[in-house]
Amino acid sequence: MTEQTTTALAGTADIGVTGLAVMGANLARNFARNGYTVALHNRSRGRTDQLVAEHGHEGEFVATGSLEELVASLAVPRRVLIMVKAGAPVDAVIDQLVPLLEEGDIVIDAGNSHYEDTRRREAALAAQGLHFVGVGVSGGEEGALNGPAIMPGGPKESYAAVGPMLERIAAQYGGEPCCAWVGTDGAGHYVKMVHNGIEYADMQVIGEAHDLLRRVAGIEPAAQAAVFDAWNRTELSSYLIEITAEVLRQTDAATGRPLIDVIVDEAGQKGTGRWTAISGLDVGAPVAAIAESVFARSLSSQREVREIARETLVAGVDGAGVADADREQFVEDVRQALFASKLVAYAQGLDMLSAAAAEYGWSLDLGTIASLWRDGCIIRADLLDVIMTAFGGRDTDRHPEPGTRAEGQPLNLLFAPEFTRAIADALPAWRRVVGAAISAGVPVPVFSSALAYYDGLRADRLPAALIQGQRDFFGAHTYRRTDREGSFHTLWSGDRTEVDGDGVPVVMPQPAEGDPTA
Amino acid sequence: MTEQTTTALAGTADIGVTGLAVMGANLARNFARNGYTVALHNRSRGRTDQLVAEHGHEGEFVATGSLEELVASLAVPRRVLIMVKAGAPVDAVIDQLVPLLEEGDIVIDAGNSHYEDTRRREAALAAQGLHFVGVGVSGGEEGALNGPAIMPGGPKESYAAVGPMLERIAAQYGGEPCCAWVGTDGAGHYVKMVHNGIEYADMQVIGEAHDLLRRVAGIEPAAQAAVFDAWNRTELSSYLIEITAEVLRQTDAATGRPLIDVIVDEAGQKGTGRWTAISGLDVGAPVAAIAESVFARSLSSQREVREIARETLVAGVDGAGVADADREQFVEDVRQALFASKLVAYAQGLDMLSAAAAEYGWSLDLGTIASLWRDGCIIRADLLDVIMTAFGGRDTDRHPEPGTRAEGQPLNLLFAPEFTRAIADALPAWRRVVGAAISAGVPVPVFSSALAYYDGLRADRLPAALIQGQRDFFGAHTYRRTDREGSFHTLWSGDRTEVDGDGVPVVMPQPAEGDPTA
Repeated sequence: MTEQTTTALAGTADIGVTGLAVMGANLARNFARNGYTVALHNRSRGRTDQLVAEHGHEGEFVATGSLEELVASLAVPRRVLIMVKAGAPVDAVIDQLVPLLEEGDIVIDAGNSHYEDTRRREAALAAQGLHFVGVGVSGGEEGALNGPAIMPGGPKESYAAVGPMLERIAAQYGGEPCCAWVGTDGAGHYVKMVHNGIEYADMQVIGEAHDLLRRVAGIEPAAQAAVFDAWNRTELSSYLIEITAEVLRQTDAATGRPLIDVIVDEAGQKGTGRWTAISGLDVGAPVAAIAESVFARSLSSQREVREIARETLVAGVDGAGVADADREQFVEDVRQALFASKLVAYAQGLDMLSAAAAEYGWSLDLGTIASLWRDGCIIRADLLDVIMTAFGGRDTDRHPEPGTRAEGQPLNLLFAPEFTRAIADALPAWRRVVGAAISAGVPVPVFSSALAYYDGLRADRLPAALIQGQRDFFGAHTYRRTDREGSFHTLWSGDRTEVDGDGVPVVMPQPAEGDPTA
Repeated sequence: MTEQTTTALAGTADIGVTGLAVMGANLARNFARNGYTVALHNRSRGRTDQLVAEHGHEGEFVATGSLEELVASLAVPRRVLIMVKAGAPVDAVIDQLVPLLEEGDIVIDAGNSHYEDTRRREAALAAQGLHFVGVGVSGGEEGALNGPAIMPGGPKESYAAVGPMLERIAAQYGGEPCCAWVGTDGAGHYVKMVHNGIEYADMQVIGEAHDLLRRVAGIEPAAQAAVFDAWNRTELSSYLIEITAEVLRQTDAATGRPLIDVIVDEAGQKGTGRWTAISGLDVGAPVAAIAESVFARSLSSQREVREIARETLVAGVDGAGVADADREQFVEDVRQALFASKLVAYAQGLDMLSAAAAEYGWSLDLGTIASLWRDGCIIRADLLDVIMTAFGGRDTDRHPEPGTRAEGQPLNLLFAPEFTRAIADALPAWRRVVGAAISAGVPVPVFSSALAYYDGLRADRLPAALIQGQRDFFGAHTYRRTDREGSFHTLWSGDRTEVDGDGVPVVMPQPAEGDPTA
């Protein structure tokens, strides 16, 4: 920071935006359209001038040619929003900015930064008296311009200075902004990351449903579009279902075939979905449905392997499809299986938020977080309003103790009565559909993983007991007993006596004959 | 390193071992039993003296009281093997050792270090003229004493000085040591990590088979022990199957019940299995079966959630088991499903080794790596000899170009003719078993994930095409076409024209009527 006080020279712009590629430009326009004076900066001046030339009439812009000018144009406390490529470019901009700023100024990173980077940057800037606000923004270019979902993290006190502006440009759902302070340091980017992980799963389960409708029920894309339109009037109603119908309806002008059939079926995965699965593993949360959706993408990209597999690996199926008379029921079954699998993905995503809160000491309110996803973002859906309600509704003043969940909130989304019921209703269809997929040789990694999660959660006993026995056998890792405290080890290569944590043989009374606990 | 040459003062011991907890002590005894003079050091002297007192007769030991003495006792080039807890303790020992060593000396880390740490340490020591050899060791305490599987990484030239000693103490399979140079820097620890990831999956699929035999076929643990004994005489023959029978056979002395029923069914996952799944995600390899086995453990540990789930979530199954007449067939089906799922886990583990080789510039020979796992380690099995053969056999002089696979090796384990056949034979049973598990509500996350992987690999088309369409719709991420090069985007919110990467409308000729490619 500068030694001398430059406050006296402060300008009047409400916010500065540096990085004017389409996301930054659209956010800047969104601010301006909402009445804020926006100072603009870009590494190359051309974009700045172009933005003003094309959209200057939308509001008040201040074009600047350097970060020094940008900073000088801002009212105090200065708010500078960075929208550059995640990674080193963000650090580079921060390094240039910091010497120009004064205590209390606010640096906002609205890009898709990794939450660990945000934690590091927040700590570094806090040490210099600056506020660093990592903000997750979802909704793509369109959302950035017209109202995205916004997930700000950073110091709570900085929210007073940036929150109202962000809430104003955010999507609104039933009069409430899809924006609220999420938690300290990296919490905003973390919540956005989990949003994207859920989005991966949401897209994959739609893909699995589509594949089943095609390959098992023989429904062609155009007819499927009508199915998805109909589903969009059920509890599945969501942006992703809506656009799925649009994509399936599209005919390729060049070939006259369904567009979906000329698109290369390889999806990339080097992004936030991958980060989500990794973080789930890190914090010990079972986010298998999300991870399977990432793996499904990486498998799809193994072009050479898939070419050989098609020639080499047998199907081993009888090829039976669905009879005409059963088609309607099958379609409804698939719809229910899709809904149940989707609920599991949301349950896993929200569960990992709690695990992360414990890991990083965040105060995350799941009800308020769900409220942010109701509109503006890619997973937007009325379902999020129901999820929000299941977690006690939106309450931006409810901040659970760091690392804990807010009182009264269910330990798992599936425990909220309406979702317990919904999944119970869907369960017979869900089992039928996964069974049919397996018989037909159609891969449904997320449908089946989600079902295994459900059956695993509710199991009386899991084979983890055998795993603990194996680990004790080969590595003396010990196990716990269901009937007493402590760690125990069986002398597997000795006389198979059981010993306790101190190596002392355990001698417990034999149960009396007829003992009902035996 | 010391400035003056201390070589003149060098001792005569062949190797020094620091860190004499059970793994370090057993490795030291293994060296001594094989004729090497072993210098011993431990942070607290007691363990050193105890080792000499109890096992001094097994060979030549030199007890030392400090790292200085340890180093002074060694012949040149000095070999110091560190066996301390992974993480900061390894760095602490290295920091103390380095000033005592001379150019050309060799530091060996035989602990379960993360490969990224090994890469970092190797680079740091190389800059100081020292060799750093990260060595993966598998086989537990028993293996360390009597012959573990050993996976050494580090500079190839250092292998001349340490390889023969490691090969001598390693397990032997058919006269060949389960030890060979694996690759540079972190490659040894990486290969060991993947071994453990496969081990996680191997244990989980055994657990799923056990669960099905119990809950669907009603076979009690003692009777299951006989089943696993029988399976151990088939192509499933392996150490893990063998000890599973032992664990299932064990009766708890205190209660008279099967031991397996008094063990708490919660398995930890904060180890190398988790690292494997994370690295699979990092390098873009679809290791879903391995990841599912990690998630199964973390789910099992959610005690409070499971308690509520048991009370809350309905089963939605009709509870039908297997009729007496069908039990034998079901058991055989489960055996085949277990074998097929296990093959997929191995295929995924080996696939991620290739991906990692490309990522880190390693020269990994999958045939030789498989040969190391034939004995000494936890996943030891004759199956590894077949896998080794499928990858061209063991050839310790075959070093593919860094980042590539050796010529002639299959792109996927399942493409080796014997495994293509084996999995084709198992396929009908595999589908029946997963279907039965889903009907019965028994969670089989790895059986079903592995089957989805198989069906995904061989699919003509995957719903990834729809995902690419969705991504183009909401984020203008573009897609590729099956019929021409380049990136394309449909103007979804415009007139739905398709444009190429430069935004130019694509006008391709309509196919002629009757064109078979249409």
